[in-house]
Amino acid sequence: MNEPAADSPDTAPIGVFDSGIGGLTVADAIRRRLLNEDIYYIGDTARVPYGTRSPDTVERYSMEIGGLLLAERAKILVVACNTASAIALPRLRRTLRVPVVGVIEPGAAKAVESTRNGRIGVIGTRATIASRAYEREIRRLDPAIEVVSQACPLLVPLIEEGWFEAEETMSIARKYLAPLLDAGVDTLVLGCTHYPLLRNCLARAAGEGISLVDSAHNCAEAVAELLATQQLATTEERTGRLRVALTDQPDTFLQVVENALTLQVGEVEFRTVQGGRTG
Amino acid sequence: MNEPAADSPDTAPIGVFDSGIGGLTVADAIRRRLLNEDIYYIGDTARVPYGTRSPDTVERYSMEIGGLLLAERAKILVVACNTASAIALPRLRRTLRVPVVGVIEPGAAKAVESTRNGRIGVIGTRATIASRAYEREIRRLDPAIEVVSQACPLLVPLIEEGWFEAEETMSIARKYLAPLLDAGVDTLVLGCTHYPLLRNCLARAAGEGISLVDSAHNCAEAVAELLATQQLATTEERTGRLRVALTDQPDTFLQVVENALTLQVGEVEFRTVQGGRTG
Repeated sequence: MNEPAADSPDTAPIGVFDSGIGGLTVADAIRRRLLNEDIYYIGDTARVPYGTRSPDTVERYSMEIGGLLLAERAKILVVACNTASAIALPRLRRTLRVPVVGVIEPGAAKAVESTRNGRIGVIGTRATIASRAYEREIRRLDPAIEVVSQACPLLVPLIEEGWFEAEETMSIARKYLAPLLDAGVDTLVLGCTHYPLLRNCLARAAGEGISLVDSAHNCAEAVAELLATQQLATTEERTGRLRVALTDQPDTFLQVVENALTLQVGEVEFRTVQGGRTG
Repeated sequence: MNEPAADSPDTAPIGVFDSGIGGLTVADAIRRRLLNEDIYYIGDTARVPYGTRSPDTVERYSMEIGGLLLAERAKILVVACNTASAIALPRLRRTLRVPVVGVIEPGAAKAVESTRNGRIGVIGTRATIASRAYEREIRRLDPAIEVVSQACPLLVPLIEEGWFEAEETMSIARKYLAPLLDAGVDTLVLGCTHYPLLRNCLARAAGEGISLVDSAHNCAEAVAELLATQQLATTEERTGRLRVALTDQPDTFLQVVENALTLQVGEVEFRTVQGGRTG
């Protein structure tokens, strides 16, 4: 039997990147959906957050990290970052020779499919909500849908503290969701890669009858579909490996994510980037 | 009557800078202490936060913003940023031809003066606490003092939301302070330029018998003393003017600070910096 070629789908990883560590929720969703695939994750922790940078800078950073993943022979590039998904997808798709999947399109599509009353709520960071990226994509799919958005700037720091079950977190989530529930949304898009870690709390705060659309989960579905239709799926029966590289020392949040997702990240690699701590 | 010379203390402003908008608490404390002085404030909002950058980068950014303030004829440079105070003071002092005051030394000195039992608590952002800058400065002044530090990463986002009086904020403050109170500190250093905005809440959470040391207030005292001893104080009787420049568009937090401090910032100027949004 011959060895697979160097760029065979059987040995090439799925490349995933985020500005930080939150995108590991997407890597985890892909891992659970595609057990036999290798995943190579890069978190650009030296330059996090992307949400406050100019579009040019976000494009440049995304191209740079995309290039690092292609150098690892990634067969598909997953942009597990809302800001980069909103801004850099066209350029990445034009330039890179692999399929590129973001988190916004799959989440928006699922939300449009889910809503019964045509009212969708979107929560995210201040930058994501200000970008109106979900709103634009939802309306592109169905202009009749009403989108109610709410920036929830406290949720990321609460998640990074690991306060998933804290009373304060529940109370703050209820405060943030109140205007969306008052507006009668029946579908809630978790428009931030951190939020799947707070899914239980958000589901309780939203209450019954509200469909939660988890961008990480839907992104993983989109990846699975793309690999299948483009014959890029691994055919080997085995357990895929997750490798994680960061552009700066991880902080305590990596441990929080590992525990919450029961991920075994193991040895974290380091990558130098322009303008980063070591660049 | 002659016009004062271009570099007369009567017309030269006090230069104040921070990585963002939080340092306006320091500008405000200076304004209240030195009513007739002009203040020129620059917030490097394009490159905030400094806390996650390398020491080299923080030095470089601080030198650049310091240079902009000197070009505005600042007669003294106030580093209203904990990270820059911890890292860049030696180089700023070596290089610039005006006195340089940070926020850490005055706060640490006041804490050492205040404590009766030799146990001081320090709260700050994760980056400030990890830098151990207050701890080092306090121990330099009195090696016998015990310093108990606590990173409070949720306080800045709570302040930026303007939730000064929210129940959740009170509850979170109590959680953060509990280990310091258990350790028996009698003095608490507010080691972040945002925290004076939460002073009431923190005082209630700390309870009676704990002295709160507000870095902004003590920095203003240090500035007043320096101006007096170096004959740099304005002799004119008038109301000083506060000018504010940012390196990127202000977000909603500027409005929060203006309201909380009853500051009238007026027209915000913009400055271009290397590596910023427009750089």
